[in-house]
Amino acid sequence: MKNCRIAVDAMGGDFAPINEIHGAILAADYFLEETELEIILVGNEGKINSALSQFDHSRLKYTIVHAEEVVTMDDEPTAAIKKKKESSLYKGIELVLKGYADAFISAGNTGAVLCTATVMLGRVAGVSRPTIGEFFPSQKEYPVLVLDVGANIDCKPRHLYEFAVMGAIQANQIYGLENPRVGLLNIGEEKSKGTDVIQETYRLLRESNLNFIGNVEGRDIFRGAADVVVCDGFTGNIILKFAESIAGFLKFRFKKFAESNFINKLLMLFAMPALKKVFKDLDYQEYGGVPILGINGVVIIGHGKSSPRAIQNMIYKAYQFVKKDVNGKIEKALNSPTISEHIEQDL
Amino acid sequence: MKNCRIAVDAMGGDFAPINEIHGAILAADYFLEETELEIILVGNEGKINSALSQFDHSRLKYTIVHAEEVVTMDDEPTAAIKKKKESSLYKGIELVLKGYADAFISAGNTGAVLCTATVMLGRVAGVSRPTIGEFFPSQKEYPVLVLDVGANIDCKPRHLYEFAVMGAIQANQIYGLENPRVGLLNIGEEKSKGTDVIQETYRLLRESNLNFIGNVEGRDIFRGAADVVVCDGFTGNIILKFAESIAGFLKFRFKKFAESNFINKLLMLFAMPALKKVFKDLDYQEYGGVPILGINGVVIIGHGKSSPRAIQNMIYKAYQFVKKDVNGKIEKALNSPTISEHIEQDL
Repeated sequence: MKNCRIAVDAMGGDFAPINEIHGAILAADYFLEETELEIILVGNEGKINSALSQFDHSRLKYTIVHAEEVVTMDDEPTAAIKKKKESSLYKGIELVLKGYADAFISAGNTGAVLCTATVMLGRVAGVSRPTIGEFFPSQKEYPVLVLDVGANIDCKPRHLYEFAVMGAIQANQIYGLENPRVGLLNIGEEKSKGTDVIQETYRLLRESNLNFIGNVEGRDIFRGAADVVVCDGFTGNIILKFAESIAGFLKFRFKKFAESNFINKLLMLFAMPALKKVFKDLDYQEYGGVPILGINGVVIIGHGKSSPRAIQNMIYKAYQFVKKDVNGKIEKALNSPTISEHIEQDL
Repeated sequence: MKNCRIAVDAMGGDFAPINEIHGAILAADYFLEETELEIILVGNEGKINSALSQFDHSRLKYTIVHAEEVVTMDDEPTAAIKKKKESSLYKGIELVLKGYADAFISAGNTGAVLCTATVMLGRVAGVSRPTIGEFFPSQKEYPVLVLDVGANIDCKPRHLYEFAVMGAIQANQIYGLENPRVGLLNIGEEKSKGTDVIQETYRLLRESNLNFIGNVEGRDIFRGAADVVVCDGFTGNIILKFAESIAGFLKFRFKKFAESNFINKLLMLFAMPALKKVFKDLDYQEYGGVPILGINGVVIIGHGKSSPRAIQNMIYKAYQFVKKDVNGKIEKALNSPTISEHIEQDL
């Protein structure tokens, strides 16, 4: 690959376009690959230029594609497709569709990005349902990829099986895990546990060539008992939002502790460095976005609160996704009975 | 009520019979009601007497019902009914069935207690599925009751509606919450969110006389956005086990922080009192057991690791459950269209 053209939704996140521009500059500054990185900034040209002027962007190779509209966090998932065709979201994905960009990243409205990308780019052959996972911190070296986390709430065994295949490929290709351990989220370890859908999924996964380690429980996520945890988007979304609330809950509790008396207040001062470090581990935006798996194109979605560092990570992930042809591997895996071949090659 | 006879599974928990005996003695020592508390210790007579001899039990009014067998944590849920009819679990519930005890408490195998109690005692009229909730700590004054947490994995709207009614009655009668706010666990606030089952449940709850505040998300549990959170036992069990793993995960992370250098180790020493306090908030056994809701009888299930204090709490909860005739209120509520009447009376 001679150059890699990444379209950036400059209007997506809560701190757009500043964090997006800053993140793109960081990506350019620290991009050490042989490939040349070209950034296409999609959004309001005036605002983009104004943000650019605040940074030294001498190493950033970029073009601007002006977009008049913005899809907000309050818009419906179908907003870009139905109404806002002049939005940075619509135009960014259109760049991918027409081959002007190799990938698109956005810290905007997750539902809208997912919906627009799926409708406009279509699915990889063999994929019934595109999916999104999210990384959870764990007690192991690597975070744990839980998927689906909200794209598909009602799932059949075949869908869950596809999530497992795509998740394993993501963990392998983007994180370099050699033979990712796949677990099925359930209420007990025995294969007789869970709903009919879950039991049938267990059977499919057991018969697959994935490194399936069986059922895992809620407690096994933080323990890192599996590298990839498969569940429907209803359960996954609830667990994800619950997990996101832990830091806030702990901060509240520690504050209450500090307020109870002067000594406790003093103790809390000493405890702050440790707390800050651990709260950072619980901070999802640090992981820097996740790909929509199973669509014909590379689209990375990030948290609305994405920091410049997170945007930088998203750009780098998009580059890796393109370079390693993750979509090609997903297509092969889901159209072949011997999945593990495709997972392990090309590490 | 002149006296209240509580049967205690002396062989149930991981530290049986010591914690059970100690807990019963604490309950007797601190029982300040007009009613007289009578404890029936069910289990191996020799072991019970040996444990009793280790404490001053002068204020404990007790009898012993010998049981030859023990249902272990590894036994199947049906073990007591199918094979171990000489177990403390079976005999304890039999005491309730035959009217020799007003309630039964056990820190033993949850599945086995649930199954044995449901089969032997039967359901309250109007209840399709008995349920168990669990309390989660929250940022509000009261913990949040989440139910079901594993008794019923596949639920119809009617079941979820019944859980809501029973949970609201529990929160009202046992915790004194005047008009408990009921939330439906979902992946978004809008009523159009979630599976068909969840959407139909939303409609049922909206039409009910419960104080239904609408959908709540995973993040709303710790925030205490609702007092009672309704979900199926699959989702509830996964969330519960995930929540139970938070303390272990944090301890691991803080340990890693302390190990990184000497200053951090010192800082962690200062942080310990705060951490210990907050970890205690996350410690479920402190809540001291939950009732099986919807069965014809009073049975409280506690964590296997229940401390003497937790056993004491379980005994007191059993007493309150009997005294307030919670089952009678559940029956009335589920056989009447005006539920809130029954929830608010008798506070």
